[in-house]
Amino acid sequence: MPNTGWGEIPADAVRILPLGGLGEIGLNMMAVEYLGELLLIDCGLMFPEPYMPGIDLVIPDVSCLEGQTGRIRGLILTHGHEDHIGAVPFLLAKLGFPTVYGSPLTLGLLRHRLEEHELLGQASLVEVQPRQALDLGVFHVEVFRVAHSIVDGLGVAIRTAMGWIVHTGDFKLDQTPVDDQPTDLVRLAAYGEQGVLLLMSDSTNVEKKGFTLSEREVAAAFAEIVPRAKGMVAVATFSSNIHRIQQVVQEAVRCGRKVAIAGRSMVANTRIARELGYLDIPDDVLIELRQARDLPRHRLLLLTTGSQGEAQSTLVRMAMEEFRALPLEPGDTVILSSKFIPGNEKAINRLINHLYRRGAEVFYETTSEVHVSGHASQEELKIVLSLVCPQNFVPVHGEYRHLVRHAELARGMGVPAERVTVLENGCPLVVSAAGLSREPRLETGRVLVDGRGVGDVGLMELRDRRHIANHGLVVVLLAVSPVDGRILYGPELLSRGFVAEEETDILDLARRQVCDMLAGMAPETATEQETLEVEVRKCLRRFFNRTVERRPLILPIILEQ
Amino acid sequence: MPNTGWGEIPADAVRILPLGGLGEIGLNMMAVEYLGELLLIDCGLMFPEPYMPGIDLVIPDVSCLEGQTGRIRGLILTHGHEDHIGAVPFLLAKLGFPTVYGSPLTLGLLRHRLEEHELLGQASLVEVQPRQALDLGVFHVEVFRVAHSIVDGLGVAIRTAMGWIVHTGDFKLDQTPVDDQPTDLVRLAAYGEQGVLLLMSDSTNVEKKGFTLSEREVAAAFAEIVPRAKGMVAVATFSSNIHRIQQVVQEAVRCGRKVAIAGRSMVANTRIARELGYLDIPDDVLIELRQARDLPRHRLLLLTTGSQGEAQSTLVRMAMEEFRALPLEPGDTVILSSKFIPGNEKAINRLINHLYRRGAEVFYETTSEVHVSGHASQEELKIVLSLVCPQNFVPVHGEYRHLVRHAELARGMGVPAERVTVLENGCPLVVSAAGLSREPRLETGRVLVDGRGVGDVGLMELRDRRHIANHGLVVVLLAVSPVDGRILYGPELLSRGFVAEEETDILDLARRQVCDMLAGMAPETATEQETLEVEVRKCLRRFFNRTVERRPLILPIILEQ
Repeated sequence: MPNTGWGEIPADAVRILPLGGLGEIGLNMMAVEYLGELLLIDCGLMFPEPYMPGIDLVIPDVSCLEGQTGRIRGLILTHGHEDHIGAVPFLLAKLGFPTVYGSPLTLGLLRHRLEEHELLGQASLVEVQPRQALDLGVFHVEVFRVAHSIVDGLGVAIRTAMGWIVHTGDFKLDQTPVDDQPTDLVRLAAYGEQGVLLLMSDSTNVEKKGFTLSEREVAAAFAEIVPRAKGMVAVATFSSNIHRIQQVVQEAVRCGRKVAIAGRSMVANTRIARELGYLDIPDDVLIELRQARDLPRHRLLLLTTGSQGEAQSTLVRMAMEEFRALPLEPGDTVILSSKFIPGNEKAINRLINHLYRRGAEVFYETTSEVHVSGHASQEELKIVLSLVCPQNFVPVHGEYRHLVRHAELARGMGVPAERVTVLENGCPLVVSAAGLSREPRLETGRVLVDGRGVGDVGLMELRDRRHIANHGLVVVLLAVSPVDGRILYGPELLSRGFVAEEETDILDLARRQVCDMLAGMAPETATEQETLEVEVRKCLRRFFNRTVERRPLILPIILEQ
Repeated sequence: MPNTGWGEIPADAVRILPLGGLGEIGLNMMAVEYLGELLLIDCGLMFPEPYMPGIDLVIPDVSCLEGQTGRIRGLILTHGHEDHIGAVPFLLAKLGFPTVYGSPLTLGLLRHRLEEHELLGQASLVEVQPRQALDLGVFHVEVFRVAHSIVDGLGVAIRTAMGWIVHTGDFKLDQTPVDDQPTDLVRLAAYGEQGVLLLMSDSTNVEKKGFTLSEREVAAAFAEIVPRAKGMVAVATFSSNIHRIQQVVQEAVRCGRKVAIAGRSMVANTRIARELGYLDIPDDVLIELRQARDLPRHRLLLLTTGSQGEAQSTLVRMAMEEFRALPLEPGDTVILSSKFIPGNEKAINRLINHLYRRGAEVFYETTSEVHVSGHASQEELKIVLSLVCPQNFVPVHGEYRHLVRHAELARGMGVPAERVTVLENGCPLVVSAAGLSREPRLETGRVLVDGRGVGDVGLMELRDRRHIANHGLVVVLLAVSPVDGRILYGPELLSRGFVAEEETDILDLARRQVCDMLAGMAPETATEQETLEVEVRKCLRRFFNRTVERRPLILPIILEQ
């Protein structure tokens, strides 16, 4: 029998299998196996890497769960960020429609996504509250409150005969969260007292010393900027950051500004959060975008998206003078209340420069205190390790270097070196009182979503895309006589993205090269289509390399006669 | 007469025309006109932006200097960074081979570039020393020492009847530079006393409060890391940062480590700097790469490139286990002694993660003090403004927002608002005792270099490259009878980067769509090649949008029969 990765394990052991999020930011998904049953934690997506041009989003490859879905007792979502819930609509069917558990806001956001995918009718969603216990097959689960950059976050604790398995989800130890619901250190301490077999903890900010600032600190920055602003204030932030949005609204109210909302996800998420009671915007404060233009500029605050410089976002369109509904005016103030996510800096810089060109004053992470992180820094991670006192430790949620550093941190806190391991996606780990036992890596990975296609763009297509993007394309049309290899058509050369044809006669010269090459070819070679393709490609590759030092993708098309 | 931008100006005025570097990082080049003659300052390149896939580098468009080269009295290079000298080999001929002035190291680096382009014989290079005066036509020029992240940097002062024109070049006010040659505040003060008509000053770090740390501070970080390292230490830094390299070498000597050098530009630049006496590496410390493998790891320090995660660099190849000459081993230490340049973060993160996977310990900007900037922060910029006391101020060297903030800083320091202006590339400015007068913008811009081609890849090719990169390509081959529009060949569909063909029958379905479309077409339409192309494109665009929501580039090829 092939290794499906699901060989039997002893009754006094659990197996964990990370399906995403370990060694990368995004795609968070973890499978836990105990007494022959499976529990899933999170099911997130990732935004494409630079080497995936044109891809819309990426989801985990869960093919190693094929044939195992009957054993899945549930999918627990820790919070509503895309990198934790975003793959659910794409994978729910593949996972056999397990019941999905989550806090009200998490499920509210998920419901919206499932509606878009016309899957809401088939999904079974169950709301859970902090400290609620759930019996899911053999799994005795308790969820606990964690503070994070989205409201209503949860961690997951699973009681086993060998002790608790604790998964923090994404968290920080904000002692003054906007909703007064800090991370439940009391429960973490209780798990520690009762005995924790395994801790899995958020590694995102392990490189940051000290403590992450409280979300409330951002209010101070708003209170400095907004009252002084003479024109409109536009605040761009992550549409899921309900606490941030709440603080912006409070400052608007204090300054007597009405609040308009723009941007698809901002409109959707504020609607959901208001309906569920997570966001308080008085009815007389909220105005429609079309009313906003009639207000004096200093009575207006716009909440919007685009803080990452996303090309189609409202803020970028405003910066490019393409947002007719509410154009920017000189003297307006723009606040980017967000992190510069690595990979987006160029786009964000471009956005900021264009905002300045419009005459706006701009505040952003690198110059003002308009953003705080949602993830725990070193001292917070240490507190959790010291409360939970885990027998075994696996860092989760981070790039490889974050995991290594978090592992070092745990060893430094006294977890025995051999009971701490850096796991990557697809690496099953068996955990028992005896310690950790790694198993051979399974095939996992990333599935690309492009438009409506899921998985139909693969590595080869990406390679071709990058090749053409970097070097352009040359198509060669050619027909030869099947009898004597005489040229019947062409060679005709066409190019795209290769060279401005009016600037050079390079394609003409290339055509002559192919003719010469064909003239010197034995007829029996020329009539073999594959050989002919290879030779045309070789001839042109050499020619372009010699003349312009470029490597366009060469696509010989041998026409059948 | 068309506006060439060089209409006459009064004898008591100068005109400046930025040709690059204002509103962007890179491409620094400035023209100064006085009494009918021209002086150029710097001639730099830029590395390509994300929207320029496949482009190797970018140079300024100097077409507005066409017909003016007879008036050019010289090109002064402030320092040897690529964004100040890199375009010289590409533009020297276009500029009519003006004499090039620069410090010995600057010209040493340039000479190397000119050799590569086989231009050294035609170039006239003249070395200058700090405080040296030059009479270049009507221009009485004095260069003065500035400290920067490359040795031997200069600023430029031009004496006119109306006062000095001072151009800082790139600088910081390092009070303890490694070569004990700080920025020449004495001369700056003297210009100020004598009267400065115009100051142009480096805006790169205007967003940074306080003072930029001295280059010597980095030595402290090295002194902490290197002695503790158990294996090899590899330090990656910019190959032009000779002071940084000097400090690395000093630490190696102190720890009894031999120094090996890898990476094309690191090998070249250290050779040039040693020959010119700017870099001291004792002969018995420097070893060949091939000797390095025989040394005990803790006796070895490698100086190399790749701190930006460049794909072909030595360090990246080491991280990917592709550098056979000297593979990394677990326990080695890697120091990225450099800034994370915006746009490179993803590549750098990837590099760091792979270094950790190899078992190396890695130190970098965000976790250790292994880098300091070469540009002046706010307090330094203020000191220069207050010493120089300019009548007029134009911020240079920065993105648009930097220029705006630097302009604000100058106004805050008492330069009258109307005598400070934010200039963009191609905007001529006439400066006189009466103040500033802007002239209409000239055509300037960027010329793309791809392989050996200069300017033969334009915006249209870039658009096609990006289009295919994002959506793939579908080629449609088709021949119809010129008589009755009957299909004689095809339609045959080929794709690249669009879809994994084994995963789907979408191309088959698309082919049938084209057939149906053709069947319903009037013969007189079908025989018109252009109409046919348009209709095929329209038909497929609609079909792919409806079915997979994608927009491949569709390339219909109508074969002539």
